[in-house]
Amino acid sequence: MFSFAVTKQLHAARLSRLSTPHGVIEGPFFQFVATRAAIRGMVFQEDLEKMKVQIVLANTYHLHLQPGEDIVAKAGGLHGFMQWSGPITTDSGGYQVFSLGNNVKLDSEGVTFRSHIDGTLLRLTPESAMDIQHKLGADIVMPLDVCTPFGATREEVAAAVEQTYVWAQRCAEAMQRFPANTQALYGIVQGGVYPDLRQQAAERMRELNFFGYSIGGELQEAGEKELEKVVKATIQHLPADKPRYLMGYGTPEDIVEAVRAGVDQFDCVLPIRNARHGQIMTDLNKEYVAECLQDPDKPIDPKKLYTKFDITKAPYRSDYSLFSPNHPIIQKSYTKAYVHHLLRAEGPSGLRLAVLHNIHFYEQLMREIRDVIRG
Amino acid sequence: MFSFAVTKQLHAARLSRLSTPHGVIEGPFFQFVATRAAIRGMVFQEDLEKMKVQIVLANTYHLHLQPGEDIVAKAGGLHGFMQWSGPITTDSGGYQVFSLGNNVKLDSEGVTFRSHIDGTLLRLTPESAMDIQHKLGADIVMPLDVCTPFGATREEVAAAVEQTYVWAQRCAEAMQRFPANTQALYGIVQGGVYPDLRQQAAERMRELNFFGYSIGGELQEAGEKELEKVVKATIQHLPADKPRYLMGYGTPEDIVEAVRAGVDQFDCVLPIRNARHGQIMTDLNKEYVAECLQDPDKPIDPKKLYTKFDITKAPYRSDYSLFSPNHPIIQKSYTKAYVHHLLRAEGPSGLRLAVLHNIHFYEQLMREIRDVIRG
Repeated sequence: MFSFAVTKQLHAARLSRLSTPHGVIEGPFFQFVATRAAIRGMVFQEDLEKMKVQIVLANTYHLHLQPGEDIVAKAGGLHGFMQWSGPITTDSGGYQVFSLGNNVKLDSEGVTFRSHIDGTLLRLTPESAMDIQHKLGADIVMPLDVCTPFGATREEVAAAVEQTYVWAQRCAEAMQRFPANTQALYGIVQGGVYPDLRQQAAERMRELNFFGYSIGGELQEAGEKELEKVVKATIQHLPADKPRYLMGYGTPEDIVEAVRAGVDQFDCVLPIRNARHGQIMTDLNKEYVAECLQDPDKPIDPKKLYTKFDITKAPYRSDYSLFSPNHPIIQKSYTKAYVHHLLRAEGPSGLRLAVLHNIHFYEQLMREIRDVIRG
Repeated sequence: MFSFAVTKQLHAARLSRLSTPHGVIEGPFFQFVATRAAIRGMVFQEDLEKMKVQIVLANTYHLHLQPGEDIVAKAGGLHGFMQWSGPITTDSGGYQVFSLGNNVKLDSEGVTFRSHIDGTLLRLTPESAMDIQHKLGADIVMPLDVCTPFGATREEVAAAVEQTYVWAQRCAEAMQRFPANTQALYGIVQGGVYPDLRQQAAERMRELNFFGYSIGGELQEAGEKELEKVVKATIQHLPADKPRYLMGYGTPEDIVEAVRAGVDQFDCVLPIRNARHGQIMTDLNKEYVAECLQDPDKPIDPKKLYTKFDITKAPYRSDYSLFSPNHPIIQKSYTKAYVHHLLRAEGPSGLRLAVLHNIHFYEQLMREIRDVIRG
């Protein structure tokens, strides 16, 4: 039921086909974040289909807390619960435990923490993370990993790499208890900003022969240059015939950069979170996307790639130009002035328009990237 | 451009056609509240069209404060600004000044108050209320009135009736300055719970020969019986050939009751505000609607008319029955458990589904009422 193939290459950038029980995804692709089984910003599954969104990402930690995986399982898993018939990824929840949980205590067997909602004492182990994800029923699932913060020492990062490896092995074993070929497990490559640890982590993960490989880590603060170095340092040690997933990034420029390095799969809260704060991305420069992919050494200038603006700022109060022309869902000729007004005066009312716009922008970006690689 | 005709009657209940420059509305009809030029709950004009919504109501006070009527006027009025091509009503803002404004000071020329947003000192007069509404460009407009709270003394109510009459006259005069037949002005009948003051107010308003007549007042606390009495006491003094608009009510049972008394036009925040708090209205009993209209003396039992439930309550956590089958926009088979989860876990995400549901319910109710009268 699962397969992956690179169908075309432009330098290191890859066009790919990832088959899952819920459909085929053409890569490079972006996973929109439906943390709690819905996109924040009142965009529902009918809308995602109309925007030709290929796949969404839900969150194990959040869904375990609320409504609980048993509630989801009884609805036929996430596909039934959220009524999304396309592919779904769930992450393991490890990242959220470390960033959101209280009183987090890590031991070699798992991690104990208190719910950020009601303080309940909870524990996640490699095995329980897989159990939960089995009940959630996503197509692509992630092992429980240890993610070190940016600025962690070499020793801390090395220990996290080792723990992540041991847990990944246990996750792979736990998967054996479930019916074969219903879910694909990835290995997560940690290693912080240390190229040799990245190499070590990649090589050890390869031993376990996962369906795909994720590049994990908390690198937002390291800046783009560091991210690029880490991605390149990791990818060269990953197998060429498996999907490569850069977790939690990024901006349009991050994405083009990572695609040039050979990444196939992305996720990020950015398009949706930005929209909620009035940050609109528009005017994708398709020729520039092509130039950047055709010349992989060309430095990427975000300002040439697209326009980003804060629609809640004063100049948009009386800007009667169209907010989102040619959008598959926003059919009315809403102006920037109208969306400005809604986001300023009404809070939630403008959100849907802003989120719909940014999702469509990201889908356009990914489609353009694929078209350029296809040639 | 404006006309009104009662096309059929069942006892006192009226089927009607109200023609406006932006389309014909079949009555009895309900105006959904788009206070700040949008329905709260991320329901946009594309959606309203698909749900066959006939007309929306926007708010002069709120739009005057933000974004200001000049911003709206430059977009071609509310129709251009919010991209709604159907009929629109604006209320005068008087009600909001008294309920939301700070330091409200009433004098015979107008009302002075401070903005509830930023404390700016503002003043509304009968003339400026019409100026603002002229710029907003709604089809149906309301004069500035004085609305007394429930529990006001007879003297206070009598003074408000008098002031409302004087201002209504000034509003009608102010309208002479604008192009004819672009907006229809209603007279608002006040009088509290005093039948003789209602009669007096209705008769004086009739002298001014408005296009339609509204029944105003703060009667929510008085209860349904009192509301029914007030509506009946007012309507018998209104002309038979003009629209009758009960402002700010109500529940489905209020609406059926008022239709039986001869009301043609409604507005209320209830379907949308309720949805935002998880209050879902469903299972309209069409036979019971017919029974109530055919026998105008039959007491209306809300429990027989429809079902109301709070979807955020515990039993819905694992209720996998369909949330809103056969909805023109909610095409996916979302369960009550899913909407419960979204409203509990995600705040805004569930809103759109809940609001879409209740709007459709109200449109079904009004359609059913019209069908019964049509026979």
